[in-house]
Order: sequence, then structure tokens, then C-alpha cells
Amino acid sequence: MSSPAIGILGAGQLGRMLALAGYPLGLRFRFLDPAPSASTDPLAERLCDPFEDIPALAQFAKGIDVATYEFENVPVSSVRWLAERLAVHPGAPALETAQDRLLEKTFFRDRVGAPVPPFECVESSGDLDRATAQLGYPCVLKTRRFGYDGKGQRVLRNEADARDAWKDLGGYPLILEGFVPFSREVSLLAVRNRQGRTAFYPLAENHHSDGILRLSLMPAPGHDSPSGQALQAQAEDIAREALAALDYVGVLAIEFFEQDGRLLVNEMAPRVHNSGHGTIEGTVCGQFENHLRAVMGWPLGNTAPRQFSAMVNLIGAPATGHIPSAQAFAPIGDAHAHHYGKSPRPGRKRGHVTLLAPTREELAAKVKAAETVLANLESGLAV
Amino acid sequence: MSSPAIGILGAGQLGRMLALAGYPLGLRFRFLDPAPSASTDPLAERLCDPFEDIPALAQFAKGIDVATYEFENVPVSSVRWLAERLAVHPGAPALETAQDRLLEKTFFRDRVGAPVPPFECVESSGDLDRATAQLGYPCVLKTRRFGYDGKGQRVLRNEADARDAWKDLGGYPLILEGFVPFSREVSLLAVRNRQGRTAFYPLAENHHSDGILRLSLMPAPGHDSPSGQALQAQAEDIAREALAALDYVGVLAIEFFEQDGRLLVNEMAPRVHNSGHGTIEGTVCGQFENHLRAVMGWPLGNTAPRQFSAMVNLIGAPATGHIPSAQAFAPIGDAHAHHYGKSPRPGRKRGHVTLLAPTREELAAKVKAAETVLANLESGLAV
Repeated sequence: MSSPAIGILGAGQLGRMLALAGYPLGLRFRFLDPAPSASTDPLAERLCDPFEDIPALAQFAKGIDVATYEFENVPVSSVRWLAERLAVHPGAPALETAQDRLLEKTFFRDRVGAPVPPFECVESSGDLDRATAQLGYPCVLKTRRFGYDGKGQRVLRNEADARDAWKDLGGYPLILEGFVPFSREVSLLAVRNRQGRTAFYPLAENHHSDGILRLSLMPAPGHDSPSGQALQAQAEDIAREALAALDYVGVLAIEFFEQDGRLLVNEMAPRVHNSGHGTIEGTVCGQFENHLRAVMGWPLGNTAPRQFSAMVNLIGAPATGHIPSAQAFAPIGDAHAHHYGKSPRPGRKRGHVTLLAPTREELAAKVKAAETVLANLESGLAV
Repeated sequence: MSSPAIGILGAGQLGRMLALAGYPLGLRFRFLDPAPSASTDPLAERLCDPFEDIPALAQFAKGIDVATYEFENVPVSSVRWLAERLAVHPGAPALETAQDRLLEKTFFRDRVGAPVPPFECVESSGDLDRATAQLGYPCVLKTRRFGYDGKGQRVLRNEADARDAWKDLGGYPLILEGFVPFSREVSLLAVRNRQGRTAFYPLAENHHSDGILRLSLMPAPGHDSPSGQALQAQAEDIAREALAALDYVGVLAIEFFEQDGRLLVNEMAPRVHNSGHGTIEGTVCGQFENHLRAVMGWPLGNTAPRQFSAMVNLIGAPATGHIPSAQAFAPIGDAHAHHYGKSPRPGRKRGHVTLLAPTREELAAKVKAAETVLANLESGLAV
């Protein structure tokens, strides 16, 4: 059997969905992840070792045609070690940039020439005083590294908040960002293959609560209007520059704030992204398949939407950690549940459901129906 | 982890596509198949033991919530053994009926009341003489059991053919069928869940060569015309009766001959079916997901087509056994390759590609493009 083999660092739900998209393409998979159990376990080989473990990396690399990652906090050193031995996409520069909010913001501002919120590097309490004076309140203090789902972030409304936040976060490398009174958050899934061809999905509009993504609508509302098309064009221009500057291969997600009809870059993720899960059914070729096509050096698939789609995350309910079964969404119609095979834990992303509809009105009704299923679970009703 | 587990007898491409459809639903899988290597191997647990091996069946059944099969030649005795211990769908009566062409034709004629080609049981050369006299030439001599992809079948055009065929097939339980001068072959994918709810896909039109399915078009051409709707209604009536008579749970495929605007039942398969592979992308809920929903007792998914679809089988080329890579079809657009992870062998079904288009004309152009990819492979051009 000579089917191509892809090695993936990280074995969470993104890895699981990559494998599910890749098996039909004739690809094989090997994962590396130190977690005691992983989303990919029932459906692919996994080495259960630390990302930094060189013998494990050597075993991981053996017989693999190309490596990629589904988790942006894998050590850059591991990616560099692998890249000396086989193709790794996206490359180390993209990973390094994405891992540090200061490098990332600087990259988008200086290399890409994209609007970003004002920011200051904070390495001491003196820096924090100067930075708050510079940016004014409210502002947001963030760890430069290892933040996700709103973790490692504090909104500062006054000096007392700043002192409190410093007690918690002081000692980590930090960045202070000016607060952007944005009207909404949107994200762009961009993809570039080994030949340098690019493709872009329609912008998704993202809704968070408690710092966790709950709902993504694709295309974002207003997409077909002149102002919606202008946003799409601005996002694609920024993404095209960033992809080229990083010699990027694979799917790149860029999150934006929309403010007064223009986009500011918030952050990027050098991987497939939660706001793009709806592309599996919602577009001709989903982000997972396109990431694989890109890293294999194959022609990219069509990113056009089939219908209006909504991606609703299934997050462990506060009380029990449970989420509704696939069956609970069946009555909604054209609803596609995706479970990640993860054990229950409150606040944990354990799945998502994608809803498709031919009109925005019908889609809104389906989103409401899905939210009712979720609310019933939280209130203890059987679903 | 308490996600439901499904046990599947047979670990070929149908099992592989069931698992790929079932993981997103939060299901787990265990396969049993004696083959040294299997399509499901990279992506699911498999017991490599004979279907008749009772200790293996016991191990297979352990911790499984429901069992099903993806291969209609599994021993009925194994299904009965399992059915005494856990839910097995479809049940033994359906399997037994499908395994024997004589039982099958008798079932459709007498229990369902469906038109079938004339047939006679043949157990001796004397029976064969009587049966050919009864049905006339041409006629078709078939083994009652274990035929697939045209194997175990001989068309008889005269007495000499009959004598030749008897030399080959005499000794097996046989059936002689009158030759039906049919205009085309169509198939219906029907599904019934544990609650007795049914759903039906649009008829598919099937094209064979060398006894192997090459192309299925869904909905079948002419589907929207009054005569097309009449065929759909006749097929659904027959399927509804058959499902009820067998207390059937799961996907049932029925193959029909169309003759003078009406359908005659040719045969059935108590499982997901090659002519339904295009439902994965071509309908709201594909046959693999619907089979799983049915055997789990969940609400069935919508069987409505999204667009016109064509399913083109990727069969090992005569010379090399190789098939085109997924990449070769990418330029066609809205083309979805499915590789089965099977090693090359001439004449072996190793994958399929589904083509979608908004009009029949565009679909026909895509089918032609896919056939060119296949022809280039056979003529030795790199694809």
C-alpha cells in the first residue's frame, strides 16, 4: 500500500476531522499527542508522547510524507526538528508568529500593512503604567503566549483593575491592547497550497460567550451587500499578503474586529479553525479537505457556499458537562452533528452541529431550534 | 466514555464508509472480518476471525450496543447467534431471503406481490431442460447463492449454451430466469428505522459493464416527468411492502428492471449499496448515516437530493489495477473522491467519485471529464 501518509501534531477534534476528511482521499494518518486520551484514538494511530521527545518525533516522522499540526502551541523547536527531515506545513515562521501576540500584531502591522488595534509590550509594572497611559482605559491585558478561548486575558477599566491584573499575570510576557469598540467579530479561512495557489472562504460572523465561540454564521450577514463585499475584499487582501509573507501552506484563520465598516486584525491561527467547521457541509470543499489538499500540493477545492450555514458549538453544560446526542438535532432537518469523542467536562468543546438553509430567515429559525435543544439540556430535560 | 458502539460484520468499503459517517454522530465501531487486510483497518478496531467462529463472535458482541453487517454473504447462523444476545439489524429473515435468489424472487412475487421476471428452480439437468422449455431462449442461469458483480451467471441463447453452462454450474443450486428485454436498470435505496418509520431516496439509474456497476445517476433521468414519478411511486410501494414483511431495520437496496414503463424486481441487498454512494454528497443525509440512524432507532435523515449527482466507480484498470488519485478529479469541480484503502487488483472496486451539478447537462459534461481521467489511466498517461 503506497497511499500517502500525513503526520499530525495534536490529536484533538481538529485532527479527528482532518482524518475523517482525508480517508476518502486515500490518505493515511499518524498523530502525536501526549494526552492520555485523544479525539483521534478510535480512528487513527497515535503516539502518546511529549511533543518535545526527540525519539518520539523520529518515530512519528518515519514513513510520513508530510507533517502538519492542529494545535498552535506545539513547540516551534519540534516543528524545526521535523522540517529538517521532511516537509512540514505550515512552516515554523507561521507557528512562531502565531504563538506570540506581540510578534503577531507586529507582523500584521509592519509586514502585512494591516490595521490592528493599538498595542504595547508590557514586561514590567512600569511598562504597564506607561502603556495604560498611552492607550487609555478600557484596554485589554493579555499574555503573549498560550492564550486560548479567552484564557490569559483581562479587561482593564481603571487603575485598580490594572493592579489586580498585574498580580495575576505579572511575570508572564504581556501585551496591552487598546480596547476596540467593534461592532462584530468576523473570521476569514484562507488556504494556500504548495504551488502558491490561494482560495478564500466567505467571511464568517462569530458570536462568543464567556470567551468561547458559540455560533458562526457563514457567509456573514450582509455578505452580498456592497459593504459586505468590501469587507470580504479587505480580508482577502490582508490574508493574501500574510500567506505570501510567511510562504504559508495550509489553512490559515484570521480573526478580525469590524469597526466603522473596516476590519482590524485581532489574531491568526495557523490551522483549521472552529469558525470554519460549517464548511464541511456548507461549502463545496470544506476546510479540512482543503488543508489536506494544500499540504499535499494538490489543486485546492471550491470554497463557494452551498447554502447559508450556521455552526453551533456543543459545549459541556455547566452542571453535567453533557451535550445533546446527534439524535436530538435530527428533527431540525439538514442539521449535521459532529461529536468529537471527548469525555464530559463543563465548558469543554465536545462537538458542533451545522445547520443549513436556503434563506437567512430559515437559518435563524434553525439556530433558535438548536439553541432550544441546548437550553433543554441545561435545564435538565432529556434530549 | 459511554458513546454507543456498533459492531459490523464485514470490513470492506461499505464498513469503512459506515464508520466515516458514524464517527461524527458520536458512534464507535468494531468490525469482524477474516480477510488478512481490510478497508477499515486504518480507522477502526477489527477482529480478524472467521464469521462462524463462536468465541470471536462472543468477543465481537462484548460491549456492542447493536450489530449490523455490510456484506450479504455472512452466515445466517452467525446473525442468529448474535441476535440471541443483542439487537442485530437487518434481522436474519432479510439476510436469508437475500442470500438465495429463489427465496428472494419467491418473496417478492408471493409476499410482496411485485412483478418479477419469470423464474424456475433448477436442481438437475432434467430441471434445466424443462425450465428452458418453459421460459424459452434467451434466459439466464444463475447460482442461487453467493453471486455478485455478475459472477455465477450465464446468459443462455440456445441449447448448446445450456449444456456448456450446466458443465460449469451444475451441482450448485440454480435458478433459471426469463430474459427481460429491459430498457434500463434502476435501484431504490429504502430505509426503515426501529420505530418503523421509512424514507426513500430518489431512484438511481445504473450502468454496468462486464457485470460491474460503473455509473449511477441520481435522481434517475426522467425522474421529474409523470412517468418518472410513477416509477418512483411503484418502487416505493414495493419497498414499503418488503420492509414491512421482513420487519426490516436499516437500508435496503432493491434493483429493478424497467420494461415498458413498469418495474420488475431483479434482486435486493440487505445493506447500503454501491448505487447509493452518491448520496453522501448528493442528498441531505446519505445512505451510510441513515443506515446508522435506522439501526440506532434515531429519526431518519432527509433523503432529498441537493443537486443532480453521478457516482462513478473507480475500478482497478485491467493492466495495473491502479486507479486515479483524488487529485486527478480535483479540476472537474464539485467532484468528491472516495478511496477505499484497497490494494490494486484488476477489476477490483477501489473507490468512487461523486460528481454534483445543478443541471443534467453540466453533470453529463462532468461524467465525460471523469471518464477521460479513467481512460487516460488505462492508456498509461499519468494521472
